[in-house]
Amino acid sequence: MGTYPTTDRTIPTRSRERASYDRALVHSVLDEGYVCHLGFVRDGAPVVLPTLYARVGERLYVHGSTGSRPLRMAGAAPDPGLAVCVTVTLVDGLVLARSAFHHSINYRSVVVHGTARQVTDPAAKREALDALVDHVVPGRSADSRPANDRELAATAVLVIDLAEVSAKVRTGGPNDDDADLGLGHWAGVVPVRTVHGAPQPAADLDGAIAVPDYLTAPAGGTTAC
Amino acid sequence: MGTYPTTDRTIPTRSRERASYDRALVHSVLDEGYVCHLGFVRDGAPVVLPTLYARVGERLYVHGSTGSRPLRMAGAAPDPGLAVCVTVTLVDGLVLARSAFHHSINYRSVVVHGTARQVTDPAAKREALDALVDHVVPGRSADSRPANDRELAATAVLVIDLAEVSAKVRTGGPNDDDADLGLGHWAGVVPVRTVHGAPQPAADLDGAIAVPDYLTAPAGGTTAC
Repeated sequence: MGTYPTTDRTIPTRSRERASYDRALVHSVLDEGYVCHLGFVRDGAPVVLPTLYARVGERLYVHGSTGSRPLRMAGAAPDPGLAVCVTVTLVDGLVLARSAFHHSINYRSVVVHGTARQVTDPAAKREALDALVDHVVPGRSADSRPANDRELAATAVLVIDLAEVSAKVRTGGPNDDDADLGLGHWAGVVPVRTVHGAPQPAADLDGAIAVPDYLTAPAGGTTAC
Repeated sequence: MGTYPTTDRTIPTRSRERASYDRALVHSVLDEGYVCHLGFVRDGAPVVLPTLYARVGERLYVHGSTGSRPLRMAGAAPDPGLAVCVTVTLVDGLVLARSAFHHSINYRSVVVHGTARQVTDPAAKREALDALVDHVVPGRSADSRPANDRELAATAVLVIDLAEVSAKVRTGGPNDDDADLGLGHWAGVVPVRTVHGAPQPAADLDGAIAVPDYLTAPAGGTTAC
């Protein structure tokens, strides 16, 4: 699939060896996470809000609600749109070194710079809504009532092209100084994972409705505990 | 402990019933997470980077490295500092409704608006480094080699006062429309948790060094799986 072209702002000033522009890696990180942190500028100051997202090809759909600030600030095409930075971070481990200085975490992150525009076409909005639902719970959009026209109108979705994108990855154990290797402190990695617990039915759910298979089979990057 | 005063930008335009300014709630969210998303403005565009942080009283320390962009942009007092937004998000569950439209997630998030300045005082830097290490692994700073002067000089820490702060929380089951309650779709919540796996010793660790107690006892918000 190749790589994303680099730009001045996708080349880090530090830890360049951890940066990657590989499309397959970027897609895998974006597909494993489902909460992004959406950054934009309001009255000259930065704002960072968590929200749900989904990737479809080289587009990122970000969920919002009509009336929310980033949505009101991002017009639909041909509006110039809203400059955004979307960041997704997956934590894989805590890295304990002999020295306090070399403590770190293992992680995979993706940073997307771009312009967000509102999705207004009803068909594109439906595609985005299905993608958002299926991204969090694969298979779910086919097992829920689709949005009606009123709900579609009340849903706001931003789209950002994946063009200026970078990933950053740290893996492996601690990088202690040679002089510290003889110290008596334990050193290594504590793995971190996100897991799903047993599904809890809604209080008003008909007891005859069983938990669907797509909730009992482990999916993308998570493990039943 | 009371509440943080509200400002125009800490009052959400949507879902106001989910917003809170309670200091105890804000502190509990900040203390349970350890990765924040730091937003700042560079050349007029937003940048959002993941990094480690720790709370000490009403101060937030954010880890950086000398030479990184936000660090170079934030001077030490009396420099006016760098306008930042720091957001911490904890995901608690996936909310499955009968309708695609009412799908959601349960979460707790904190958004901090403020000004970041570099910590230059060596004693304050040591306090910050210890807090950062102990925040990720409680008890660890006392069981590792403290930073020496060279390492302290190579470490950059930003400090942000907790003054303009809000939390947002969603809990509970799906909020389906009454007309959808009879549909045959399963509805409810899938709990999401972050768990720690078994500690993996570094390849070069002396086999006689046992895993410390503070890694085997469950701590703050995480559960051994």
